[in-house]
Amino acid sequence: MIKRSIVTGQQARLASRNGTHTTSTSGLAPGHLQANLIILPSRYASDFRTLCARNPVPCPLIAESAAKGCSDAFISHLKKLGGDEILGRGSDVRRDAPRYMVYKDSKLEKSHCEEVTAEWTDDHIAFLIGCSYSFETALVEAGLAPRQLVQGRNVPMYRTTMGLCAAGVFRGGTYVVSMRPYRKGDVERVREVTRRFGTMHGEPVDWGWDAVRRLGIGDIDGPEWGDGPLDEGGEVPVFWGCGVTPQEAVMRAGLEGVVMAHAPGHMLVLDARDEDIVE
Amino acid sequence: MIKRSIVTGQQARLASRNGTHTTSTSGLAPGHLQANLIILPSRYASDFRTLCARNPVPCPLIAESAAKGCSDAFISHLKKLGGDEILGRGSDVRRDAPRYMVYKDSKLEKSHCEEVTAEWTDDHIAFLIGCSYSFETALVEAGLAPRQLVQGRNVPMYRTTMGLCAAGVFRGGTYVVSMRPYRKGDVERVREVTRRFGTMHGEPVDWGWDAVRRLGIGDIDGPEWGDGPLDEGGEVPVFWGCGVTPQEAVMRAGLEGVVMAHAPGHMLVLDARDEDIVE
Repeated sequence: MIKRSIVTGQQARLASRNGTHTTSTSGLAPGHLQANLIILPSRYASDFRTLCARNPVPCPLIAESAAKGCSDAFISHLKKLGGDEILGRGSDVRRDAPRYMVYKDSKLEKSHCEEVTAEWTDDHIAFLIGCSYSFETALVEAGLAPRQLVQGRNVPMYRTTMGLCAAGVFRGGTYVVSMRPYRKGDVERVREVTRRFGTMHGEPVDWGWDAVRRLGIGDIDGPEWGDGPLDEGGEVPVFWGCGVTPQEAVMRAGLEGVVMAHAPGHMLVLDARDEDIVE
Repeated sequence: MIKRSIVTGQQARLASRNGTHTTSTSGLAPGHLQANLIILPSRYASDFRTLCARNPVPCPLIAESAAKGCSDAFISHLKKLGGDEILGRGSDVRRDAPRYMVYKDSKLEKSHCEEVTAEWTDDHIAFLIGCSYSFETALVEAGLAPRQLVQGRNVPMYRTTMGLCAAGVFRGGTYVVSMRPYRKGDVERVREVTRRFGTMHGEPVDWGWDAVRRLGIGDIDGPEWGDGPLDEGGEVPVFWGCGVTPQEAVMRAGLEGVVMAHAPGHMLVLDARDEDIVE
């Protein structure tokens, strides 16, 4: 199985680049951090940094292009890591995620395309946002393996009515959340394990069947992105902030020009590891 | 008028301590930052820091006790300021706000008392949270004076249904917001002015009459704290994150022991000034 032979971030990125890995990155290169990607015209960069600072749970900003137009070198926003340690030289965010989305004037133009080299310009800035796949290895080690990881499926992701704090052009946005089902008695341990990954969405934002109503989720079996959850009974949904949130915020903000992003679940796998960021 | 003779943070704190200033601190010592206060048993300190890190708009943590039991020296959480620059030596957070609230086992026990010296123990840790009064001088200078400041009233504050991200024992909490009415055409300038005060709640979280519904505010004329707004017509409500949020979070969390806080609107006036933190 190709997935098992991928054990480093670089291997995951190269497999994505050359088309040998094309699906969800859940479980890929265990122990390595993964990142959401959003690529914006430079005039929106300042407002986007403010959006992240004000909404760090769904939008934990971990790095950005070292300069405008730079797709292969990054400045870190994490205390303990440099840009090169997050994403080593030779990487290229335009090709190193398995699949991409392209938005034009805030409308989806391409879905699940293989790369965005043609769309990239000298005016673009790429932002890396922490991803909850990063704490899944720790959950496995704690005996709390997420179901979709075991089954090789993509995590279900939902639109919610939970409001983001407005930031410049980014207004009217709401949280996107990922969901993993757990037994009620395991939720406190799940919270403890994931709390230590503060820059990777951290602990759940909410949980339990009441949370479905509080978050304004219409149909738990019909996620907006990812694969539907398979109900095994006796479990409750547990929701985390999700790095698809910025893509939704872009759609609502009416941005002009071309915006690119990873396809939900199809992340950039990083060179940095769990132990580099756990608190 | 006593208020006009108070021009420094130290003067404001001494006037609060000796009982010559007993009301809202809106407009006091113009150009100086103001802070919300929450004082917790030490076992809740770690979860409270996580709550602030995950919800920085309503809970921007700017400083905390230099050690457990220390009410007169602080460690800064701001990049540009040391603890002594935020609150100088000789200050005492148990007496230097005009009025206080005391909670026991998460139930309000005393409202608007003059000091909390008797309740303070060696196990308590004080946290200072940024306050939106801090950007009111900048609004005045931009020709956008908040109505309640001009009228010498307390700002209206409301409970909302906008959820906080859970953090340890702090779960099920919701935002408290402050409100200042503005003409619709002025909202973008109000956003720009206050955006620069990122550690003092920053720009509004939402605005307009639709926001009343989105935030789940029942009665705009009946705020939970502060003075009711006086409608002059033709204006829309503009809502900011509010540092009363942690007091609400404490009430919901079922904390054991004694928690103290400032009375809403009756803030600690700091030695640091606007220009020390604007972005």
